[in-house]
Amino acid sequence: MYHFVTSIRTCYADVDQMGFVYYGNYPKFYEIARTETIRSLGISYKEMEEKGVMMPVVEINLRYKRPAHYDEILSIHTFVKEIPQGPKMTFFHEVYNENGDLLNEGSVTLAFMRSSDHKPCRIPEFLKELLRPHFPFQAK
Amino acid sequence: MYHFVTSIRTCYADVDQMGFVYYGNYPKFYEIARTETIRSLGISYKEMEEKGVMMPVVEINLRYKRPAHYDEILSIHTFVKEIPQGPKMTFFHEVYNENGDLLNEGSVTLAFMRSSDHKPCRIPEFLKELLRPHFPFQAK
Amino acid sequence: MYHFVTSIRTCYADVDQMGFVYYGNYPKFYEIARTETIRSLGISYKEMEEKGVMMPVVEINLRYKRPAHYDEILSIHTFVKEIPQGPKMTFFHEVYNENGDLLNEGSVTLAFMRSSDHKPCRIPEFLKELLRPHFPFQAK
Amino acid sequence: MYHFVTSIRTCYADVDQMGFVYYGNYPKFYEIARTETIRSLGISYKEMEEKGVMMPVVEINLRYKRPAHYDEILSIHTFVKEIPQGPKMTFFHEVYNENGDLLNEGSVTLAFMRSSDHKPCRIPEFLKELLRPHFPFQAK
Repeated sequence: MYHFVTSIRTCYADVDQMGFVYYGNYPKFYEIARTETIRSLGISYKEMEEKGVMMPVVEINLRYKRPAHYDEILSIHTFVKEIPQGPKMTFFHEVYNENGDLLNEGSVTLAFMRSSDHKPCRIPEFLKELLRPHFPFQAK
Repeated sequence: MYHFVTSIRTCYADVDQMGFVYYGNYPKFYEIARTETIRSLGISYKEMEEKGVMMPVVEINLRYKRPAHYDEILSIHTFVKEIPQGPKMTFFHEVYNENGDLLNEGSVTLAFMRSSDHKPCRIPEFLKELLRPHFPFQAK
Repeated sequence: MYHFVTSIRTCYADVDQMGFVYYGNYPKFYEIARTETIRSLGISYKEMEEKGVMMPVVEINLRYKRPAHYDEILSIHTFVKEIPQGPKMTFFHEVYNENGDLLNEGSVTLAFMRSSDHKPCRIPEFLKELLRPHFPFQAK
Repeated sequence: MYHFVTSIRTCYADVDQMGFVYYGNYPKFYEIARTETIRSLGISYKEMEEKGVMMPVVEINLRYKRPAHYDEILSIHTFVKEIPQGPKMTFFHEVYNENGDLLNEGSVTLAFMRSSDHKPCRIPEFLKELLRPHFPFQAK
């Protein structure tokens, strides 16, 4: 399993009139966390697009446990649980506040797509290579 | 079952550099559709908050089938499948483009919460009354 | 002078914890109003891009007089005060609530840019033609 | 003059189909920069609200020179040019990319407002005290 932690600070624009971070902002928080997780593996998502691979989102599932508030630092834990074998990849997330309370958890599944013709494709070999050292017990 | 349709037009701010409506905008589209669905029942969500009932989101699940693009009119179908008996309510959504293609489907579950003390509560009786005529076969 | 009115309804995502519509959302409201104003002239901005002309924003100026709140219908008045002669075009906006209170006013200036090489260009002739009937006293 | 620099990284949600950071996102970038500038003075905006002072935005002016793109680190320079004497305060901003190109510049003016009755008020004394060491030549 690969595990990476990203921090973000909530801003005024993020909070609704209940005083809670608007639930619709979490997909963006997940995107930031996912981007930094990919970067930590040794490639940026931007470079992946430049290499001709896009990753549109095909499914998201989020569960909200407790609210986040204005000007809090949130820790977003991202987990990759296996090296994808097919045309999709899932990132799992847990969001904690500064007290260590679990606020939110969920997952985002993305498809691999060729930029050239917008057709689905398998996980690119370069991404698989970057993941492999973190999954010593997964068969190729 | 209660069924209501809301239309929205996608704007420049909604679209990403793939030329697709950014997936993180759909929860906001669902919110607009849910708000208009509640209004169509005979009360606005704003009035519900004024009556002391808030509805924070506790779970969302979305599946993306095809992309939406800039300046398209999307039809968001919202379904309420039963009168909630407990402290939560689920709205189901399907998003179609002008060709009738299903782009996206999903659900949002909200909890009922008293504004006064932020404690969970059951569905308010006034909302149940507004739903009842649409569910003639559901036992009370 | 060309004058067009667009209505939008504020949603939960738009409002901050003061209970006011977040000031950073007005540029998006202006975009929606500008898009509908251009459409009312007889062409969509989308078609303009397809014809090879983009209009990036080069300047915005907004003044906030009174707050907007959740679930209000805002009327956005858009004014074009002259047919642009050079490489830029300015749209003026006034935002009113349902009571007729002026909430906000401002302007957005856009440059004309060729999609092919991202170079500045003059206002396209087709847009000038569409504006001309509304400016009978402006010399060509 | 007080000068503070904040960095942000642009994300996928920020970029439009031109491949440019959507102009409507800059007011939020300014908000993040302003918040961190206030924090650097020795108080957070959150604490100011808790002390009963709100700062709604009354005017913004932005000029866009060059586009920002996806996954760039932007440096936002914030300048306070004087200790406010009256009921308003202005922050000046300059946004640079990693090459040192000036992308955008502008200002945001905020009013001081009492939370208790939403009436305008003068700059609170505690904020004046925090600014004073940085303006040795400004008369009180």
